Formats: sequence, C-alpha cells, structure tokens
Amino acid sequence: MLDKRMTKEDIFENLKKFQDMDMSYESGRILSSMCTKPDPIAMEAYKMFIETNLGDPGLFPGTSLMESEVIEMLGHLLHLENASGHLVTGGTEANIMAMAVAKYLFQEKHEGVPEIILPESAHFSFKKIISMLSLEAKVVPLDENYKMDVSKIEDLITENTMAIVAIAGTTELGLIDDIEKISEIAYSHDIYLHIDAAFGGFVIPFLDDEHKGDLNFDFKCKGVSSMTIDPHKMGLAPVPAGGILFRHAEHLEKLAVKTPYLSKNKQTTIVGTRTGAATAATWTLLNYYGMEGYRKIVKNAIELTEYTYKKLNLMKNVTVTCKPELNLISFTSNNKSADILKQELYDYGWRVSVAQRPHVVRLVLMPHVKKEHIDRFLTDLNEVLNG
Amino acid sequence: MLDKRMTKEDIFENLKKFQDMDMSYESGRILSSMCTKPDPIAMEAYKMFIETNLGDPGLFPGTSLMESEVIEMLGHLLHLENASGHLVTGGTEANIMAMAVAKYLFQEKHEGVPEIILPESAHFSFKKIISMLSLEAKVVPLDENYKMDVSKIEDLITENTMAIVAIAGTTELGLIDDIEKISEIAYSHDIYLHIDAAFGGFVIPFLDDEHKGDLNFDFKCKGVSSMTIDPHKMGLAPVPAGGILFRHAEHLEKLAVKTPYLSKNKQTTIVGTRTGAATAATWTLLNYYGMEGYRKIVKNAIELTEYTYKKLNLMKNVTVTCKPELNLISFTSNNKSADILKQELYDYGWRVSVAQRPHVVRLVLMPHVKKEHIDRFLTDLNEVLNG
Repeated sequence: MLDKRMTKEDIFENLKKFQDMDMSYESGRILSSMCTKPDPIAMEAYKMFIETNLGDPGLFPGTSLMESEVIEMLGHLLHLENASGHLVTGGTEANIMAMAVAKYLFQEKHEGVPEIILPESAHFSFKKIISMLSLEAKVVPLDENYKMDVSKIEDLITENTMAIVAIAGTTELGLIDDIEKISEIAYSHDIYLHIDAAFGGFVIPFLDDEHKGDLNFDFKCKGVSSMTIDPHKMGLAPVPAGGILFRHAEHLEKLAVKTPYLSKNKQTTIVGTRTGAATAATWTLLNYYGMEGYRKIVKNAIELTEYTYKKLNLMKNVTVTCKPELNLISFTSNNKSADILKQELYDYGWRVSVAQRPHVVRLVLMPHVKKEHIDRFLTDLNEVLNG
Repeated sequence: MLDKRMTKEDIFENLKKFQDMDMSYESGRILSSMCTKPDPIAMEAYKMFIETNLGDPGLFPGTSLMESEVIEMLGHLLHLENASGHLVTGGTEANIMAMAVAKYLFQEKHEGVPEIILPESAHFSFKKIISMLSLEAKVVPLDENYKMDVSKIEDLITENTMAIVAIAGTTELGLIDDIEKISEIAYSHDIYLHIDAAFGGFVIPFLDDEHKGDLNFDFKCKGVSSMTIDPHKMGLAPVPAGGILFRHAEHLEKLAVKTPYLSKNKQTTIVGTRTGAATAATWTLLNYYGMEGYRKIVKNAIELTEYTYKKLNLMKNVTVTCKPELNLISFTSNNKSADILKQELYDYGWRVSVAQRPHVVRLVLMPHVKKEHIDRFLTDLNEVLNG
C-alpha cells in the first residue's frame, strides 16, 4: 500500500465491494439506529457547500449566515427567541459544550469537584464527558415508567452540583423525562439544566395534539439553560449535523478561544475545522419541509410505531416494555432472552439492538422503515419465537 | 420561518446567493487556510458513502474495514506497524483523544493536577483541551528559530507531568520542532509524548531528500506515543477527516466507552455518530495518489513556496520571517504593521492571516494556490507597500 497506485477503475471496483458489505437504510433492515437515509434535497445542498469550513467563518460569510438562520429556526422550534448556538458534529459534541459551559460557570464560584446529576438513562456520551471533564456523576434511578425519578433529584443536590441533565427522547426507550418538574427544581436551586433532546428535538415539536397534549420539554420551561437537538437524526440531515442551543449568549461565550490566525478572532465550538455542508443541508431541510412537512414525517413514523405496538401486543410470547412516546418500541419474550432474540433476528437479516435498562429488544422506527418492512419483520419474529 | 415552506426552486436560488457571498479556494485568493478544495475523486467516494456511520460500525462493516486500512496506511506513512487509531472529525478531536489518554494513564498512578508541557506555538485546540480536561499548562518558550526551546523542557518536568506535546508543522509558521531530541527526553523520563502533525503529517513524509534530509519526526522516534495527522489538510480530503494514531493499542482502549445499544459494544472516539464518507474519501486518495502522487503535490507546493520566498526577499520593505520548512511563509514590512497589511490586502480581495509569535503576515500555499495567483498577489502587495 502507498507504494502502489490504483487506477480510478480499480478504486471504484473496490469501493463497490466495501459498499456491498455495508447495510443500507433503504433495505428497511436497520431497526437499531437513530440515523437514517439523508433526504435527497439535503444531499444536493450538502454537495454545493462541501468545501466550506465554519471553523473559519470569515472566509464563508454566506454559509455562516445560514448557520445563524438555522440556529434562529431551531430556537423558534424550541421556544427560544435569540438563541445562541452552533451546528456541531453531533449530540456528543453538543453535550460536551453544554457540560463544559456548566463546568466553567461552576469554577467561577467553587473550588470542589463539580458534580452532575443525570438519569440512569443518559446517553453514553455522558460517560465520556464525566471522565474527560473530571466530573462526579450523581445518577438518578429510573422510576417505574423508566423515566428519571424526579423525587430523587433534590436529595442529590449539593453545593458542588454544577448541572442537572434530563432527556427528551431517551436513546434506549424514546421516553421523555418530566422536564417541567425538573426545570422547576433546577430553577429554584439556581442550577444549570441541560436537556438532551438529540433525538426528541426533531420529533416532539411535530407531534399532533393527541400525542403531545400539553407537554412542555423545551425553553418554555424557564429552568432550561441549554438543549441538544440533532438534525442528523429525525431531521433527515446527513452526518455531521448536531445542534446545541443556549438560552444565554454569555454562556456560549464561556467556550470562546482566541483564533488569531483565522478569519474571525474567536471560536466557540469544540471541533475546530467544521464543514458548512451539513449547515446548508439543514437550512435546506428546515425551509423545504417547515413545520408542516416535519409533522407529516413524524406522523408517519408514529403511526408505524403504533401499528407495530398493536401487532406486538397481539403476538404470542411477546411483552411490550411500555407504551411508546416517540418512534421507538421495545419488547421481551418469555421464551428467549433479548440477546438471543437479537442474534436470531440478525440471522434473518434484521438489525435490532438490546437496551440495558431494562434488558429488552429495541426498535427505532426511522423514516427509512416502511410498513412492508415491519410486516416482514413481524413474520420473522413470530417464526423465531413461535415457529 | 418554519411556518412557511419554500419551493425547491426558491431554495436553490437562496443557496446560490449564500454561496456567492462565500470565498472559494478555486479563486486562489485564500492564502490563510490549511484547508483546500477537496480532490474530485475523493468527492465521488464521499458521496457513495454519505449515509454510513462509523459510530455504529457493525452496520457498516465495509466502511469499517476501509477505516482499518486507512489507519494501517497512515501508520506505514509514519513508521508505525500495527497502528491503532481512528479517522476523526479533525485535529482538535485527535488532540483531545491523545490528551484524554495521557490523563487517564496519569490518573492511574497519580492524584495531583495533571500537567502538560507544550510549546508556545501549540495550536489553539490545546487551550480548549487544557480547560476542558482541567490540566495545568507548562508552556515552553520558543527559541530564536521560533521552535520549542528543547533546553527548557526538562526544567518543567515534575512528578505531575502527564504529557509533552510537540509540533510537526506549526500552524503559524509551518515549523517542525526537534522531535528527535524531545523524544529522547520523553523516553528517558517515561513521559507520554504526543506529536501534533495535523498539518505536517501529510507534507513531511513526501518531501524530497534535499528538503527532508535525515529528519525524524514520527514513530521512528521511540518516545512518540501518539500523532495527529489530518487528511483534510494537505491530504486533499473533504472535512471531516482528521486522524489519530497510537503506538499502543491499549492506549486507545483507555477511551473505550460501552455502547450497549449499538452494533459494536464499545466506542473509542470522542464524537459518537461519525460519517464514514470521509474515510472512504481518504481511502480513495491514499490509493489513488500513493507516495508518488503525494510527493508530486508536495513538490509543487514547496516549489511555489520557494518561488514566493525568493520574490518576497527581493521586494522593497519586506522582511521574510524565516526560511520556510513547509509550504507556509511569513513576512513583515518596516512601513506597515501586519494587521494593517492584512486589512489592505483584504481590500484587494486577498485573505491572509496574522501570526502572533512573532507578529507577522502568514501565507499558506495550499494546492489551490497557483503561480499566477502568487504573481498577482505579489503585484498587489508591492502596490500596498510601495505603490
């Protein structure tokens, strides 16, 4: 390698082989991922802006303006006027940014080891954050509905509490913590509250009245300081398109690092060089679909989830874990463990994953999954369980 | 916004307007950036793999295999057999990963605040890292050649030293620290040594004998523990394509976080969801260009730098800062400050930047910059200075 050059023909022949080894979303066989096939119109925009670098925004003022418009639109979606934030590489970078801000705010007033209070259901990115940022984790157990047990939060608050984290759309079960109540607690104790809505941020605002009711999960709750919301999950944008919004501009500024040799003199993201193509893709999607378009996308996903829920409930030897709140659904069987089920379904060509809290098979019904895929899946599942 | 949908036509009309506000590399006017126009063949590969996610590699075993091959090739390039590492979002994530590993290794044996020894010329990503990871910085001043003053390193070593960082291709001047000597120091004190070759990693290995001589800057130096090398700089790959290599597989494992609901049960990058498209692009470039192709790209850039150096040296009222080692060149004028020069050149349509150590105008001669651009630039510069 490296000493021998390949022809263009050889290269694309090889790339095709690699591609054939990969799964594709289009097959409808991926039921384990919160990512999906990027929308074609987003891809066109992505290609147009592939060479842009928002780490050096003075060179790309047009792309930079698009980023401001996207942040404004995401703020609008989450009930925040004058949002500050960025489109970043994904939920992990967004969560790191929020926790770094909370840590720097804490360090302005305290000497001790900063503590974060977060639910057992928090995404694994928080494990990375806790060790990288040298935080101490105070884990809130889940209640009988698999949500952060709100009654346990206040007991964990100490003078070293730097932040509380709650989840709007947990990775494992797609459940929404009681953010209204958690916000009240954070607000009354003057503690930074971050909402990880990496998944739910592009679903909950588009739910119809029947599913959303009077749920408040965003900046409408006055205790919420920052939110993660990822266009590259239910927003249909290509990776890398994560989003982070801060209520207070001065919070984002806590991340500012001087960048003397770039076209602007400071930078407030973790990652430095950062493609603007994902921003162009997100700008395009938000304007192309708008509220109405995303409502339809979410409606389809929720309807398919409810269809699957109904069918699973009727299936012999299947217990559905909980009523889905978003487009995720989990189940167990009384005759096979979740791990064995996962493996046997794998052999049928299905990719499902296993949640840990509780230990159940987990399906994410992203827009690439259609009714015909679910019907085939249910047939195979029935064969695996009862065949 | 969001309540009103745009037609496809409106969208592309708007995108075109945003694009027209941006600079393009192709104009040859960007002399301030370490990024460049991605190679067309890399773009084709990128598009093919746009939906892949290496954060969930079990779904994309073909793309994952390409990543292993890229890491092997980059290891080969930097004299490391059996390299461990990843293609990540860029130099910042790569540097974070190295420093997180060094911190975790340190914490296994020590209680104190971990200290890093790094040169004044270190990239601003280390500022982010120092505050995020709660490290203490011990800054080594530069010597009269603007390189890390090796004679000052040992004085800064304490029992809390967790790592030394040195640079192969500084962001400001493109200079290479004396890594052979620094490696000896690190090795003899058993201290983790990270080399930031984000820029130089895709230049130095391709220099001809006249320019490289017997320089050793990579894993050949036995004290080197990890290296950053970015395909999205001189590798001609599209963003996000950074690279991190570790000498010891068990070092990368220090970053492992369990990922129960993904297709593999652990993850060793900072970012979670991670496009495989940049990996496909890098795989393609390495196989398409090989050593021979990159040698030619680097030769062209170095020749243009030497041409510019010669011309600047002949220009009235210009002092070149130092003999270029890579394709960066810096200068000052005795009749205008660097900041004023930058601004006046801006008005002529040129984007240059200003380095801080020393305070000079800085040019990066990336492959999108051609001789005709430099000739036009020198004419304009002469007019600004002597016109």
